[in-house]
Amino acid sequence: MKILIAGGDGYCGWASALHLSARNHDVTIIDNLIRREWDFEHNLNSLVPICTIDERIQEWFRLTGKKIHFVNVDVTNYSEICKIINCEPKFDALVHFAQQRSAPFSMIDHEHAIRTHINNTVGNMNILWALHEYSPNTHLVKLGTMGEYGTPNIDVEEGFINIEYNGRSDRLPYPKQPGSFYHLTKVSDSDQINFTCRTWKLRATDLNQGIVYGYSTAEVDLSPILANRFDYDHIFGTVLNRFCIQAALGHPLTVYGIGGQTRSFIDIRDTVKCIEIACENPAKLGEYRVFNQFTEMFSVLQLAQLVQQVSENQFNLKCKIAHIKNPRTEKEVHYYNCINTNLCSLGLQPTLLSNETIASLIQLSTKYADRVNLKLIPPQVQWKPDDEETTPNITNGHAH
Amino acid sequence: MKILIAGGDGYCGWASALHLSARNHDVTIIDNLIRREWDFEHNLNSLVPICTIDERIQEWFRLTGKKIHFVNVDVTNYSEICKIINCEPKFDALVHFAQQRSAPFSMIDHEHAIRTHINNTVGNMNILWALHEYSPNTHLVKLGTMGEYGTPNIDVEEGFINIEYNGRSDRLPYPKQPGSFYHLTKVSDSDQINFTCRTWKLRATDLNQGIVYGYSTAEVDLSPILANRFDYDHIFGTVLNRFCIQAALGHPLTVYGIGGQTRSFIDIRDTVKCIEIACENPAKLGEYRVFNQFTEMFSVLQLAQLVQQVSENQFNLKCKIAHIKNPRTEKEVHYYNCINTNLCSLGLQPTLLSNETIASLIQLSTKYADRVNLKLIPPQVQWKPDDEETTPNITNGHAH
Ligand SMILES: NC(=O)c1ccc[n+]([C@@H]2O[C@H](COP(=O)([O-])OP(=O)(O)OC[C@H]3O[C@@H](n4cnc5c(N)ncnc54)[C@H](O)[C@@H]3O)[C@@H](O)[C@H]2O)c1
Ligand SMILES: NC(=O)c1ccc[n+]([C@@H]2O[C@H](COP(=O)([O-])OP(=O)(O)OC[C@H]3O[C@@H](n4cnc5c(N)ncnc54)[C@H](O)[C@@H]3O)[C@@H](O)[C@H]2O)c1
Repeated sequence: MKILIAGGDGYCGWASALHLSARNHDVTIIDNLIRREWDFEHNLNSLVPICTIDERIQEWFRLTGKKIHFVNVDVTNYSEICKIINCEPKFDALVHFAQQRSAPFSMIDHEHAIRTHINNTVGNMNILWALHEYSPNTHLVKLGTMGEYGTPNIDVEEGFINIEYNGRSDRLPYPKQPGSFYHLTKVSDSDQINFTCRTWKLRATDLNQGIVYGYSTAEVDLSPILANRFDYDHIFGTVLNRFCIQAALGHPLTVYGIGGQTRSFIDIRDTVKCIEIACENPAKLGEYRVFNQFTEMFSVLQLAQLVQQVSENQFNLKCKIAHIKNPRTEKEVHYYNCINTNLCSLGLQPTLLSNETIASLIQLSTKYADRVNLKLIPPQVQWKPDDEETTPNITNGHAH
Repeated sequence: MKILIAGGDGYCGWASALHLSARNHDVTIIDNLIRREWDFEHNLNSLVPICTIDERIQEWFRLTGKKIHFVNVDVTNYSEICKIINCEPKFDALVHFAQQRSAPFSMIDHEHAIRTHINNTVGNMNILWALHEYSPNTHLVKLGTMGEYGTPNIDVEEGFINIEYNGRSDRLPYPKQPGSFYHLTKVSDSDQINFTCRTWKLRATDLNQGIVYGYSTAEVDLSPILANRFDYDHIFGTVLNRFCIQAALGHPLTVYGIGGQTRSFIDIRDTVKCIEIACENPAKLGEYRVFNQFTEMFSVLQLAQLVQQVSENQFNLKCKIAHIKNPRTEKEVHYYNCINTNLCSLGLQPTLLSNETIASLIQLSTKYADRVNLKLIPPQVQWKPDDEETTPNITNGHAH
């Protein structure tokens, strides 16, 4: 298949591009490399050093003889997007990762909220209009997030829910309760994609992805020049990756509040398989379908305890858990049960979180320990400045 | 109360500003007068000629001795919005009408979709951030639309719905099915307002308004210089107003498709009362509440028949109904039952659609018949160009 990967220089996008290319798909990446600029702007760095996109692509060609094309394009630039989407032969699939994906980034201030909103929603609208005008057969595979649903007190279905109400019934879009300006953009994207599939007969798969953890994939591991980014900072670092780094450095694992927040998770090795499955089993024309792309649910405290066990048992590292004031406005105790049957029924065989994976991440962190800036770990962005109602600060001194 | 009216030069905003000022509220209007530019750009004109905002305000002062303040501000300009919202004493209420409000306008092309999206969603975000930073006590009264809900097969509640599912239950945001890029902006606004009330403890009332009809209010009728706009064109004209103009001109009433589309309606005299009720009964801090602001439901065909009866019986005008190809993608036969108890329980006494109101609109149209450009009535914006599935074109020659 001819596949366009928007955001292919990022964490999920790069691993997916290599995975699809390895399976002989004809891959083109578009990315404006803005994530590298955001890192620079906020003094952040990937734990693992990453090469330029040109070096990456050359190395892949050297190792495998497979060509990945790259075009530096901003998805918010409509005429450029049209040019790409209109080129012959048309793309079979467009996988859209190219967004600002950090909730804290979107909550820093007005300017970051607007930047996130414009980057994500205008980018998404441009892609929908360009597909409509130039390539309505191309299957859009769009990355959403499990965070769109929030934490309702009923089971989370995949995008839609059958509601019985006052003796009548309908299948309606699942009610969403996004928890940041970032998550709000994803909900808005979903509504737009749903609308255009209904109205223009586009075809799309919305992948509501859980929090991704892990580093290795078969292809990324082939060479240090193919290395993927691994974020540990308070803005782009996600929870399990961050805990492994903290463990490796003898830093307490910083749990926000009591840590009862339960979330959906997925290993990066499964992310790339899900993308492959979605592309190879396209939605029908006019179909808008939603897959919840995760494999397991954990509370934040459970994850901290898993990492603690592995670091103490396998590495003999003393590892404390520090409950710190929760910077976010979110429920710390709640019901959470999400359905994820769609991808499994298309063949996904989940890679469950193992001690081995945690151990490999702790080892990776130890290897690059000198690159870690500890100041970047404690949360600095507050959802509500001076919120009186969040958990009292019970830090042990190290953490914030 | 000190009340800021954003979009106070428009159809609902101008009538509401006068109504609130007449009741001795201290009213400030902000508006960038962009709607007058859009009319110019698309060669549209209000049936009733309207004066400049300065002339309107002066006339109001001359007649009543009451001062309405006006500032020419674009709500997408954050620093200007902050200055206004931060001025002392703070506003008790901010009524937000200042948006691009036409569904066809938003569907013209990519550029109009993006313009609508940016104007509406960035304006809304700016207001939320400015309230958060400078005046969290100000009660936001935001205009949404009944069109956000689409036409689900279950009753439409006011913003939230109690869902029982797999033996558990929750009160969740009502699932939305917006039918244009315009409606999509309103859904996104609602999600953002809900989020900021929860997170920042803002207070807001989201008024999901039905389609507004009518012209007269007690204040607008005082002088021709206070005249309100009355849109009849295919972009901004709404259905009942348009039918009355068509009847007055002996033009067939153009029903889109079979006309079974049922919608919620409200008389402009009730709009202004609803705004007053919302302002005078503010939401609590942290509360996000939704009122469905309409009084009656009609199918498009029902409305055409009502207008036909009045024009034939009272004016002896021959009046045909022409079913034309539906330019929109929407169900033409569907269940529709919407709840509107919140405003009634706060005291709204609905003004139901009467033959008298229809007659007065036909008279108004006759009076200004020479201002009507008939070419502006038939729909020119298609939701989906060359859609095969819509109603066959059964026009009778006059209508497109
Ligand atoms: N990482 C996770 O845990 C996770 C979880 C759920 C969903 N997702 C979603 O998956 C997608 C990819 O996430 P990631 O972790 O790989 O993020 P990332 O920041 O590593 O990668 C995003 C890439 O998109 C590019 N990009 C951003 N805006 C762009 C624009 N306007 N034009 C062109 N390129 C642009 C960036 O330069 C970057 O290379 C995002 O949409 C994200 O919301 C990620
Ligand atoms: N008229 C209806 O039938 C109807 C129905 C449901 C909801 N509404 C909502 O009520 C509100 C008012 O509708 P209306 O019929 O009075 O529309 P209108 O076009 O007559 O008035 C809107 C006003 O807002 C101003 N405006 C637009 N963008 C602005 C910006 N960026 N900065 C400053 N001012 C700006 C315009 O200049 C105009 O004066 C809208 O939000 C609309 O969506 C209207």
